[in-house]
Amino acid sequence: MTGSLTVVGLGPGNPDQITPEAMAAVTAAEDFFGYFPYIDRLNLRPDQRRHASDNREELARARAALDMAAKGGKVCVVSGGDPGIFAMAAAVCEAIDEGPAEWRDIELSVVPGVTAMLAVAAKAGAPLGHDFCAISLSNNLKPWAVIEKRLVAAAEAGFVMAFYNPISKARPHQLGEAFDLLRKHLPATVPVIFGRAAGRPDESIRVVLLAEAQGDMADMATCVIVGTAETRLVEHPGQRPIVYSPRSFKGDS
Amino acid sequence: MTGSLTVVGLGPGNPDQITPEAMAAVTAAEDFFGYFPYIDRLNLRPDQRRHASDNREELARARAALDMAAKGGKVCVVSGGDPGIFAMAAAVCEAIDEGPAEWRDIELSVVPGVTAMLAVAAKAGAPLGHDFCAISLSNNLKPWAVIEKRLVAAAEAGFVMAFYNPISKARPHQLGEAFDLLRKHLPATVPVIFGRAAGRPDESIRVVLLAEAQGDMADMATCVIVGTAETRLVEHPGQRPIVYSPRSFKGDS
Repeated sequence: MTGSLTVVGLGPGNPDQITPEAMAAVTAAEDFFGYFPYIDRLNLRPDQRRHASDNREELARARAALDMAAKGGKVCVVSGGDPGIFAMAAAVCEAIDEGPAEWRDIELSVVPGVTAMLAVAAKAGAPLGHDFCAISLSNNLKPWAVIEKRLVAAAEAGFVMAFYNPISKARPHQLGEAFDLLRKHLPATVPVIFGRAAGRPDESIRVVLLAEAQGDMADMATCVIVGTAETRLVEHPGQRPIVYSPRSFKGDS
Repeated sequence: MTGSLTVVGLGPGNPDQITPEAMAAVTAAEDFFGYFPYIDRLNLRPDQRRHASDNREELARARAALDMAAKGGKVCVVSGGDPGIFAMAAAVCEAIDEGPAEWRDIELSVVPGVTAMLAVAAKAGAPLGHDFCAISLSNNLKPWAVIEKRLVAAAEAGFVMAFYNPISKARPHQLGEAFDLLRKHLPATVPVIFGRAAGRPDESIRVVLLAEAQGDMADMATCVIVGTAETRLVEHPGQRPIVYSPRSFKGDS
Protein backbone atom coordinates (compact mmCIF):
# COMPACT_ATOMS: atom_id res chain seq x y z
CA MET A 1 0.00 0.00 0.00
CA THR A 2 2.44 2.58 -1.28
CA GLY A 3 1.20 6.16 -1.01
CA SER A 4 1.79 9.38 -2.84
CA LEU A 5 4.04 12.37 -2.51
CA THR A 6 3.25 15.71 -4.14
CA VAL A 7 5.73 18.58 -4.08
CA VAL A 8 3.69 21.77 -4.26
CA GLY A 9 4.72 25.34 -5.08
CA LEU A 10 2.78 27.95 -3.13
CA GLY A 11 4.01 30.93 -5.16
CA PRO A 12 5.72 34.04 -3.81
CA GLY A 13 3.35 34.62 -0.90
CA ASN A 14 0.24 36.39 -2.20
CA PRO A 15 -2.64 33.87 -1.89
CA ASP A 16 -4.01 35.11 -5.23
CA GLN A 17 -0.86 33.77 -6.88
CA ILE A 18 -1.44 30.16 -5.78
CA THR A 19 -2.75 28.08 -8.68
CA PRO A 20 -5.98 26.06 -8.36
CA GLU A 21 -3.88 22.96 -9.06
CA ALA A 22 -1.72 23.66 -6.00
CA MET A 23 -4.80 24.32 -3.84
CA ALA A 24 -6.34 21.01 -4.97
CA ALA A 25 -3.12 19.16 -4.13
CA VAL A 26 -3.18 20.67 -0.62
CA THR A 27 -6.82 19.70 -0.15
CA ALA A 28 -6.12 16.10 -1.19
CA ALA A 29 -3.12 15.53 1.10
CA GLU A 30 -3.07 14.38 4.72
CA ASP A 31 0.51 14.98 5.90
CA PHE A 32 2.45 18.18 5.24
CA PHE A 33 6.20 18.59 5.30
CA GLY A 34 8.01 21.87 4.80
CA TYR A 35 9.83 24.87 6.21
CA PHE A 36 7.48 26.17 8.89
CA PRO A 37 6.64 29.60 7.33
CA TYR A 38 5.34 27.80 4.23
CA ILE A 39 3.30 25.34 6.28
CA ASP A 40 1.92 28.33 8.19
CA ARG A 41 0.51 29.77 4.97
CA LEU A 42 -1.91 26.84 4.63
CA ASN A 43 -5.38 26.72 6.17
CA LEU A 44 -5.26 23.06 7.08
CA ARG A 45 -8.21 21.04 8.32
CA PRO A 46 -8.05 19.42 11.77
CA ASP A 47 -7.48 16.02 10.12
CA GLN A 48 -4.44 17.26 8.18
CA ARG A 49 -1.12 16.86 9.99
CA ARG A 50 1.77 19.36 10.07
CA HIS A 51 5.40 18.23 10.09
CA ALA A 52 7.11 21.61 9.93
CA SER A 53 10.88 21.81 10.06
CA ASP A 54 13.61 24.42 10.03
CA ASN A 55 15.35 25.75 6.98
CA ARG A 56 18.54 24.02 5.75
CA GLU A 57 17.12 20.58 6.52
CA GLU A 58 15.86 19.84 3.02
CA LEU A 59 17.27 16.35 2.57
CA ALA A 60 16.20 15.09 6.01
CA ARG A 61 12.74 16.55 5.40
CA ALA A 62 12.53 14.89 1.98
CA ARG A 63 13.48 11.52 3.47
CA ALA A 64 10.91 11.80 6.26
CA ALA A 65 8.22 12.67 3.72
CA LEU A 66 9.19 9.76 1.43
CA ASP A 67 9.25 7.37 4.36
CA MET A 68 5.69 8.33 5.27
CA ALA A 69 4.54 8.06 1.64
CA ALA A 70 6.17 4.62 1.34
CA LYS A 71 4.00 3.52 4.27
CA GLY A 72 0.85 4.59 2.43
CA GLY A 73 0.59 8.26 3.39
CA LYS A 74 -0.89 10.97 1.18
CA VAL A 75 2.01 13.33 1.63
CA CYS A 76 2.48 16.92 0.52
CA VAL A 77 5.86 18.67 0.59
CA VAL A 78 5.38 22.43 0.36
CA SER A 79 7.76 24.99 -1.14
CA GLY A 80 7.47 28.72 -1.57
CA GLY A 81 7.57 29.90 -5.19
CA ASP A 82 8.10 27.02 -7.59
CA PRO A 83 9.29 23.74 -6.03
CA GLY A 84 11.70 23.09 -8.90
CA ILE A 85 13.70 26.33 -8.51
CA PHE A 86 16.17 26.14 -5.60
CA ALA A 87 13.49 24.39 -3.55
CA MET A 88 12.21 21.00 -2.44
CA ALA A 89 11.69 19.09 -5.72
CA ALA A 90 15.43 18.49 -6.26
CA ALA A 91 15.86 17.39 -2.62
CA VAL A 92 13.03 14.86 -3.00
CA CYS A 93 14.49 13.50 -6.27
CA GLU A 94 17.94 13.26 -4.67
CA ALA A 95 16.51 11.36 -1.70
CA ILE A 96 14.77 8.93 -4.08
CA ASP A 97 17.99 8.52 -6.09
CA GLU A 98 19.97 7.63 -2.97
CA GLY A 99 17.19 5.90 -1.02
CA PRO A 100 15.68 2.41 -0.80
CA ALA A 101 14.24 0.85 -3.95
CA GLU A 102 10.67 0.96 -2.65
CA TRP A 103 10.72 4.77 -2.69
CA ARG A 104 10.65 4.53 -6.51
CA ASP A 105 7.18 3.01 -6.30
CA ILE A 106 5.75 6.10 -4.62
CA GLU A 107 3.41 8.08 -6.86
CA LEU A 108 5.45 11.27 -7.24
CA SER A 109 4.15 14.53 -8.66
CA VAL A 110 5.42 18.08 -8.73
CA VAL A 111 3.00 21.02 -8.96
CA PRO A 112 4.64 24.15 -10.39
CA GLY A 113 4.18 27.64 -9.03
CA VAL A 114 5.11 31.26 -9.68
CA THR A 115 8.76 31.52 -8.68
CA ALA A 116 10.10 34.67 -6.95
CA MET A 117 11.96 36.12 -9.93
CA LEU A 118 8.77 36.14 -12.02
CA ALA A 119 6.84 38.04 -9.34
CA VAL A 120 9.65 40.56 -8.82
CA ALA A 121 10.14 41.00 -12.58
CA ALA A 122 6.41 41.64 -13.03
CA LYS A 123 6.52 44.45 -10.46
CA ALA A 124 9.56 46.03 -12.14
CA GLY A 125 8.37 45.80 -15.77
CA ALA A 126 10.07 43.12 -17.86
CA PRO A 127 13.72 42.83 -16.77
CA LEU A 128 13.77 39.11 -17.71
CA GLY A 129 12.48 39.86 -21.22
CA HIS A 130 15.71 38.68 -22.85
CA ASP A 131 17.91 35.61 -22.23
CA PHE A 132 18.56 35.26 -18.51
CA CYS A 133 19.93 32.96 -15.84
CA ALA A 134 19.10 32.13 -12.24
CA ILE A 135 21.92 31.58 -9.74
CA SER A 136 21.79 30.64 -6.08
CA LEU A 137 24.44 32.72 -4.32
CA SER A 138 24.60 30.29 -1.42
CA ASN A 139 27.96 28.58 -1.14
CA ASN A 140 26.60 26.03 1.29
CA LEU A 141 26.20 23.56 -1.58
CA LYS A 142 28.83 24.68 -4.08
CA PRO A 143 32.22 26.38 -3.92
CA TRP A 144 32.29 30.16 -4.15
CA ALA A 145 34.76 29.81 -7.06
CA VAL A 146 32.02 28.10 -9.10
CA ILE A 147 29.64 30.96 -8.36
CA GLU A 148 32.23 33.54 -9.40
CA LYS A 149 32.87 31.66 -12.64
CA ARG A 150 29.15 31.64 -13.42
CA LEU A 151 28.73 35.33 -12.62
CA VAL A 152 31.53 36.26 -15.03
CA ALA A 153 30.27 33.87 -17.72
CA ALA A 154 26.73 35.27 -17.46
CA ALA A 155 27.92 38.88 -17.55
CA GLU A 156 30.18 38.33 -20.54
CA ALA A 157 27.59 36.34 -22.49
CA GLY A 158 24.87 38.95 -21.94
CA PHE A 159 22.48 37.10 -19.64
CA VAL A 160 20.24 39.00 -17.25
CA MET A 161 20.78 37.40 -13.82
CA ALA A 162 18.36 36.58 -11.03
CA PHE A 163 19.95 35.78 -7.67
CA TYR A 164 18.23 33.48 -5.18
CA ASN A 165 19.50 33.06 -1.60
CA PRO A 166 21.52 36.27 -2.00
CA ILE A 167 22.55 36.59 1.62
CA SER A 168 21.98 35.14 5.08
CA LYS A 169 23.24 35.68 8.60
CA ALA A 170 25.83 32.96 8.04
CA ARG A 171 26.77 34.37 4.60
CA PRO A 172 26.73 38.18 4.93
CA HIS A 173 29.41 38.98 2.33
CA GLN A 174 28.53 37.05 -0.83
CA LEU A 175 26.16 39.52 -2.45
CA GLY A 176 28.51 42.47 -1.99
CA GLU A 177 31.35 40.42 -3.44
CA ALA A 178 29.16 39.44 -6.38
CA PHE A 179 28.41 43.11 -7.11
CA ASP A 180 32.11 43.99 -6.85
CA LEU A 181 32.93 41.25 -9.34
CA LEU A 182 30.14 42.24 -11.73
CA ARG A 183 31.28 45.89 -11.69
CA LYS A 184 34.45 44.70 -13.43
CA HIS A 185 32.44 43.08 -16.23
CA LEU A 186 29.33 45.22 -16.71
CA PRO A 187 28.70 48.95 -17.17
CA ALA A 188 28.08 50.94 -13.98
CA THR A 189 24.68 51.97 -15.36
CA VAL A 190 23.21 48.46 -15.46
CA PRO A 191 19.90 48.43 -13.49
CA VAL A 192 19.70 46.24 -10.38
CA ILE A 193 16.37 45.34 -8.79
CA PHE A 194 15.93 44.28 -5.17
CA GLY A 195 12.53 42.62 -4.80
CA ARG A 196 11.11 41.43 -1.52
CA ALA A 197 7.65 40.07 -0.74
CA ALA A 198 6.39 40.91 -4.26
CA GLY A 199 2.59 40.97 -4.27
CA ARG A 200 2.33 40.91 -0.47
CA PRO A 201 1.31 43.83 1.78
CA ASP A 202 4.94 44.31 2.89
CA GLU A 203 6.22 44.39 -0.70
CA SER A 204 9.45 46.26 -1.35
CA ILE A 205 10.82 46.81 -4.86
CA ARG A 206 13.90 48.99 -5.22
CA VAL A 207 15.76 49.87 -8.41
CA VAL A 208 19.36 51.16 -8.31
CA LEU A 209 22.29 51.22 -10.72
CA LEU A 210 25.04 48.62 -10.46
CA ALA A 211 27.46 51.36 -9.38
CA GLU A 212 25.35 51.90 -6.26
CA ALA A 213 24.30 48.30 -5.51
CA GLN A 214 25.31 47.10 -2.03
CA GLY A 215 25.01 43.74 -0.35
CA ASP A 216 23.07 45.16 2.58
CA MET A 217 20.20 46.22 0.29
CA ALA A 218 18.99 42.58 0.41
CA ASP A 219 18.04 40.04 3.04
CA MET A 220 17.52 36.29 2.65
CA ALA A 221 13.97 36.79 1.32
CA THR A 222 15.06 39.17 -1.44
CA CYS A 223 15.32 38.21 -5.09
CA VAL A 224 17.93 40.34 -6.88
CA ILE A 225 17.82 40.90 -10.63
CA VAL A 226 20.86 42.35 -12.43
CA GLY A 227 20.31 43.59 -15.98
CA THR A 228 22.67 43.67 -18.94
CA ALA A 229 24.15 46.59 -20.86
CA GLU A 230 20.97 46.47 -22.96
CA THR A 231 18.49 46.64 -20.06
CA ARG A 232 16.64 49.97 -20.03
CA LEU A 233 15.11 52.24 -17.42
CA VAL A 234 11.99 54.10 -18.53
CA GLU A 235 11.26 57.13 -16.38
CA HIS A 236 7.74 57.00 -15.04
CA PRO A 237 6.56 60.34 -13.64
CA GLY A 238 5.82 60.09 -9.94
CA GLN A 239 6.53 56.36 -9.86
CA ARG A 240 9.40 53.88 -9.83
CA PRO A 241 11.00 53.67 -13.29
CA ILE A 242 10.01 50.75 -15.50
CA VAL A 243 12.88 48.31 -16.07
CA TYR A 244 12.90 46.09 -19.14
CA SER A 245 15.32 44.06 -21.21
CA PRO A 246 14.55 44.49 -24.91
CA ARG A 247 13.59 41.37 -26.82
CA SER A 248 16.04 42.22 -29.58
CA PHE A 249 19.80 42.36 -29.15
CA LYS A 250 21.39 45.41 -30.73
CA GLY A 251 24.82 45.31 -29.10
CA ASP A 252 28.11 43.82 -30.13
CA SER A 253 28.16 40.07 -30.58
CA MET B 1 -9.22 59.99 -18.75
CA THR B 2 -6.23 57.68 -19.09
CA GLY B 3 -7.03 54.01 -18.69
CA SER B 4 -5.17 50.92 -17.62
CA LEU B 5 -3.20 48.16 -19.24
CA THR B 6 -2.58 44.82 -17.57
CA VAL B 7 -0.28 42.22 -19.11
CA VAL B 8 -1.51 38.84 -17.91
CA GLY B 9 0.17 35.43 -17.93
CA LEU B 10 -2.25 32.56 -18.54
CA GLY B 11 0.21 29.80 -17.65
CA PRO B 12 1.17 26.86 -19.83
CA GLY B 13 -2.34 25.91 -20.92
CA ASN B 14 -3.97 23.89 -18.16
CA PRO B 15 -6.78 26.08 -16.71
CA ASP B 16 -5.89 24.81 -13.22
CA GLN B 17 -2.51 26.53 -13.59
CA ILE B 18 -3.99 30.02 -14.06
CA THR B 19 -3.65 32.04 -10.86
CA PRO B 20 -6.70 33.70 -9.23
CA GLU B 21 -4.88 37.02 -9.72
CA ALA B 22 -4.78 36.45 -13.49
CA MET B 23 -8.45 35.41 -13.56
CA ALA B 24 -9.41 38.56 -11.67
CA ALA B 25 -7.45 40.72 -14.11
CA VAL B 26 -9.31 39.10 -17.02
CA THR B 27 -12.66 39.66 -15.33
CA ALA B 28 -11.88 43.35 -14.74
CA ALA B 29 -10.78 44.17 -18.30
CA GLU B 30 -12.88 45.19 -21.28
CA ASP B 31 -10.56 44.94 -24.27
CA PHE B 32 -8.26 41.97 -24.92
CA PHE B 33 -5.17 41.95 -27.11
CA GLY B 34 -3.06 38.90 -27.82
CA TYR B 35 -2.06 36.07 -30.10
CA PHE B 36 -5.34 34.44 -31.05
CA PRO B 37 -4.80 30.99 -29.39
CA TYR B 38 -4.31 32.75 -26.05
CA ILE B 39 -7.41 34.92 -26.52
CA ASP B 40 -9.30 31.73 -27.42
CA ARG B 41 -8.48 30.27 -24.01
CA LEU B 42 -10.59 32.93 -22.27
CA ASN B 43 -14.30 32.63 -21.61
CA LEU B 44 -15.09 36.26 -22.27
CA ARG B 45 -18.43 37.94 -21.58
CA PRO B 46 -20.40 39.44 -24.48
CA ASP B 47 -19.38 42.92 -23.30
CA GLN B 48 -15.66 42.07 -23.46
CA ARG B 49 -14.00 42.76 -26.80
CA ARG B 50 -11.42 40.58 -28.58
CA HIS B 51 -8.57 42.09 -30.61
CA ALA B 52 -6.72 38.91 -31.55
CA SER B 53 -3.69 39.11 -33.80
CA ASP B 54 -1.17 36.81 -35.39
CA ASN B 55 2.11 35.76 -33.90
CA ARG B 56 5.25 37.85 -34.62
CA GLU B 57 3.29 41.10 -34.35
CA GLU B 58 4.14 41.80 -30.72
CA LEU B 59 5.20 45.43 -31.03
CA ALA B 60 2.26 46.46 -33.22
CA ARG B 61 -0.08 44.66 -30.82
CA ALA B 62 1.49 46.40 -27.83
CA ARG B 63 1.08 49.80 -29.48
CA ALA B 64 -2.57 49.16 -30.36
CA ALA B 65 -3.25 48.11 -26.76
CA LEU B 66 -1.47 51.17 -25.32
CA ASP B 67 -3.33 53.45 -27.71
CA MET B 68 -6.65 52.08 -26.48
CA ALA B 69 -5.58 52.36 -22.82
CA ALA B 70 -4.45 55.96 -23.39
CA LYS B 71 -7.99 56.74 -24.56
CA GLY B 72 -9.41 55.40 -21.30
CA GLY B 73 -9.77 51.69 -22.06
CA LYS B 74 -9.47 48.92 -19.49
CA VAL B 75 -7.09 46.86 -21.56
CA CYS B 76 -5.69 43.39 -21.03
CA VAL B 77 -2.78 41.99 -23.04
CA VAL B 78 -2.65 38.21 -22.70
CA SER B 79 0.40 35.95 -22.88
CA GLY B 80 0.79 32.24 -22.48
CA GLY B 81 3.03 31.21 -19.59
CA ASP B 82 4.52 34.20 -17.82
CA PRO B 83 4.28 37.52 -19.66
CA GLY B 84 7.81 38.51 -18.63
CA ILE B 85 9.56 35.49 -20.19
CA PHE B 86 9.92 35.85 -23.96
CA ALA B 87 6.40 37.23 -24.10
CA MET B 88 4.36 40.43 -24.18
CA ALA B 89 5.59 42.39 -21.12
CA ALA B 90 8.89 43.39 -22.77
CA ALA B 91 7.07 44.39 -25.97
CA VAL B 92 4.70 46.64 -23.99
CA CYS B 93 7.60 48.24 -22.07
CA GLU B 94 9.50 48.80 -25.32
CA ALA B 95 6.45 50.43 -26.92
CA ILE B 96 6.12 52.76 -23.90
CA ASP B 97 9.85 53.57 -24.03
CA GLU B 98 9.60 54.56 -27.70
CA GLY B 99 6.05 55.91 -27.69
CA PRO B 100 4.31 59.21 -26.92
CA ALA B 101 4.77 60.72 -23.45
CA GLU B 102 1.10 60.20 -22.51
CA TRP B 103 1.58 56.42 -22.62
CA ARG B 104 3.65 56.78 -19.43
CA ASP B 105 0.52 57.94 -17.60
CA ILE B 106 -1.28 54.65 -18.27
CA GLU B 107 -1.73 52.51 -15.18
CA LEU B 108 0.51 49.56 -16.10
CA SER B 109 0.58 46.24 -14.31
CA VAL B 110 2.04 42.83 -15.08
CA VAL B 111 0.49 39.67 -13.62
CA PRO B 112 2.98 36.78 -13.46
CA GLY B 113 2.20 33.21 -14.45
CA VAL B 114 3.69 29.74 -14.55
CA THR B 115 6.15 29.83 -17.45
CA ALA B 116 6.60 26.78 -19.71
CA MET B 117 9.96 25.63 -18.35
CA LEU B 118 8.52 25.33 -14.83
CA ALA B 119 5.63 23.16 -16.02
CA VAL B 120 7.91 20.94 -18.11
CA ALA B 121 10.48 20.67 -15.30
CA ALA B 122 7.73 19.66 -12.85
CA LYS B 123 6.67 16.79 -15.12
CA ALA B 124 10.27 15.59 -15.49
CA GLY B 125 11.32 15.81 -11.83
CA ALA B 126 13.62 18.73 -10.97
CA PRO B 127 15.95 19.36 -13.91
CA LEU B 128 16.14 23.10 -13.04
CA GLY B 129 17.13 22.32 -9.44
CA HIS B 130 20.58 23.90 -9.87
CA ASP B 131 21.71 27.15 -11.52
CA PHE B 132 20.12 27.46 -14.95
CA CYS B 133 19.48 29.79 -17.86
CA ALA B 134 16.70 30.41 -20.34
CA ILE B 135 17.53 31.19 -23.96
CA SER B 136 15.27 31.98 -26.89
CA LEU B 137 16.67 30.14 -29.89
CA SER B 138 14.92 32.47 -32.30
CA ASN B 139 17.32 34.51 -34.38
CA ASN B 140 14.58 36.83 -35.55
CA LEU B 141 15.59 39.33 -32.86
CA LYS B 142 19.27 38.57 -32.30
CA PRO B 143 22.16 37.23 -34.41
CA TRP B 144 22.76 33.48 -34.38
CA ALA B 145 26.37 34.19 -33.36
CA VAL B 146 25.10 35.67 -30.07
CA ILE B 147 23.02 32.56 -29.44
CA GLU B 148 26.00 30.30 -30.11
CA LYS B 149 28.15 32.35 -27.74
CA ARG B 150 25.55 31.99 -24.99
CA LEU B 151 25.15 28.24 -25.53
CA VAL B 152 28.89 27.70 -25.15
CA ALA B 153 29.12 30.04 -22.15
CA ALA B 154 26.22 28.27 -20.41
CA ALA B 155 27.62 24.80 -21.12
CA GLU B 156 31.12 25.69 -19.91
CA ALA B 157 29.87 27.45 -16.78
CA GLY B 158 27.60 24.54 -15.79
CA PHE B 159 24.15 26.08 -16.28
CA VAL B 160 21.18 23.86 -17.06
CA MET B 161 19.51 25.40 -20.14
CA ALA B 162 15.87 25.87 -21.07
CA PHE B 163 15.19 26.74 -24.71
CA TYR B 164 12.16 28.76 -25.71
CA ASN B 165 11.14 29.20 -29.37
CA PRO B 166 13.35 26.23 -30.29
CA ILE B 167 12.19 25.89 -33.87
CA SER B 168 9.63 27.16 -36.37
CA LYS B 169 8.74 26.65 -40.01
CA ALA B 170 10.88 29.66 -40.90
CA ARG B 171 13.74 28.45 -38.65
CA PRO B 172 13.92 24.65 -39.01
CA HIS B 173 17.67 24.23 -38.40
CA GLN B 174 18.53 26.17 -35.22
CA LEU B 175 17.74 23.51 -32.64
CA GLY B 176 19.72 20.80 -34.43
CA GLU B 177 22.66 23.18 -34.77
CA ALA B 178 22.41 24.02 -31.07
CA PHE B 179 22.59 20.32 -30.17
CA ASP B 180 25.58 19.83 -32.50
CA LEU B 181 27.36 22.72 -30.81
CA LEU B 182 26.52 21.50 -27.30
CA ARG B 183 27.80 18.00 -28.09
CA LYS B 184 31.26 19.59 -28.39
CA HIS B 185 31.05 21.06 -24.90
CA LEU B 186 28.97 18.62 -22.83
CA PRO B 187 29.11 14.86 -22.21
CA ALA B 188 27.01 12.71 -24.57
CA THR B 189 25.10 11.37 -21.56
CA VAL B 190 23.58 14.72 -20.52
CA PRO B 191 19.77 14.34 -20.29
CA VAL B 192 17.63 16.40 -22.67
CA ILE B 193 13.89 16.89 -22.08
CA PHE B 194 11.39 17.79 -24.79
CA GLY B 195 8.22 19.07 -23.13
CA ARG B 196 5.08 19.99 -25.01
CA ALA B 197 1.66 20.95 -23.65
CA ALA B 198 2.69 20.10 -20.07
CA GLY B 199 -0.40 19.63 -17.93
CA ARG B 200 -2.76 19.54 -20.91
CA PRO B 201 -4.56 16.48 -22.32
CA ASP B 202 -2.17 16.34 -25.27
CA GLU B 203 0.92 16.51 -23.03
CA SER B 204 4.14 15.00 -24.37
CA ILE B 205 7.30 14.72 -22.26
CA ARG B 206 10.24 12.90 -23.77
CA VAL B 207 13.66 12.31 -22.20
CA VAL B 208 16.70 11.42 -24.33
CA LEU B 209 20.46 11.73 -24.01
CA LEU B 210 22.29 14.60 -25.69
CA ALA B 211 23.96 12.09 -28.02
CA GLU B 212 20.51 11.23 -29.44
CA ALA B 213 18.88 14.67 -29.36
CA GLN B 214 17.60 15.86 -32.75
CA GLY B 215 16.07 19.12 -33.86
CA ASP B 216 12.97 17.41 -35.23
CA MET B 217 12.03 16.13 -31.77
CA ALA B 218 10.58 19.61 -31.07
CA ASP B 219 8.06 21.96 -32.62
CA MET B 220 7.45 25.64 -31.90
CA ALA B 221 5.35 24.81 -28.81
CA THR B 222 8.05 22.65 -27.22
CA CYS B 223 10.22 23.75 -24.31
CA VAL B 224 13.57 21.97 -24.38
CA ILE B 225 15.65 21.52 -21.22
CA VAL B 226 19.31 20.46 -21.50
CA GLY B 227 20.98 19.29 -18.31
CA THR B 228 24.60 19.53 -17.19
CA ALA B 229 27.21 16.85 -16.53
CA GLU B 230 25.77 16.70 -12.99
CA THR B 231 22.13 16.18 -14.02
CA ARG B 232 20.94 12.68 -13.11
CA LEU B 233 18.45 10.18 -14.48
CA VAL B 234 16.69 8.03 -11.86
CA GLU B 235 15.20 4.88 -13.33
CA HIS B 236 11.54 4.61 -12.46
CA PRO B 237 10.16 1.12 -13.06
CA GLY B 238 7.43 1.16 -15.70
CA GLN B 239 7.58 4.94 -16.04
CA ARG B 240 9.66 7.70 -17.59
CA PRO B 241 12.90 8.20 -15.62
CA ILE B 242 13.01 11.07 -13.13
CA VAL B 243 15.45 13.81 -14.19
CA TYR B 244 16.96 16.13 -11.60
CA SER B 245 19.90 18.46 -11.19
CA PRO B 246 21.40 18.06 -7.71
CA ARG B 247 21.37 21.13 -5.49
CA SER B 248 25.02 20.62 -4.61
CA PHE B 249 27.88 20.87 -7.10
CA LYS B 250 30.38 18.04 -6.82
CA GLY B 251 32.26 18.47 -10.10
CA ASP B 252 35.40 20.35 -11.05
CA SER B 253 35.28 24.07 -10.61
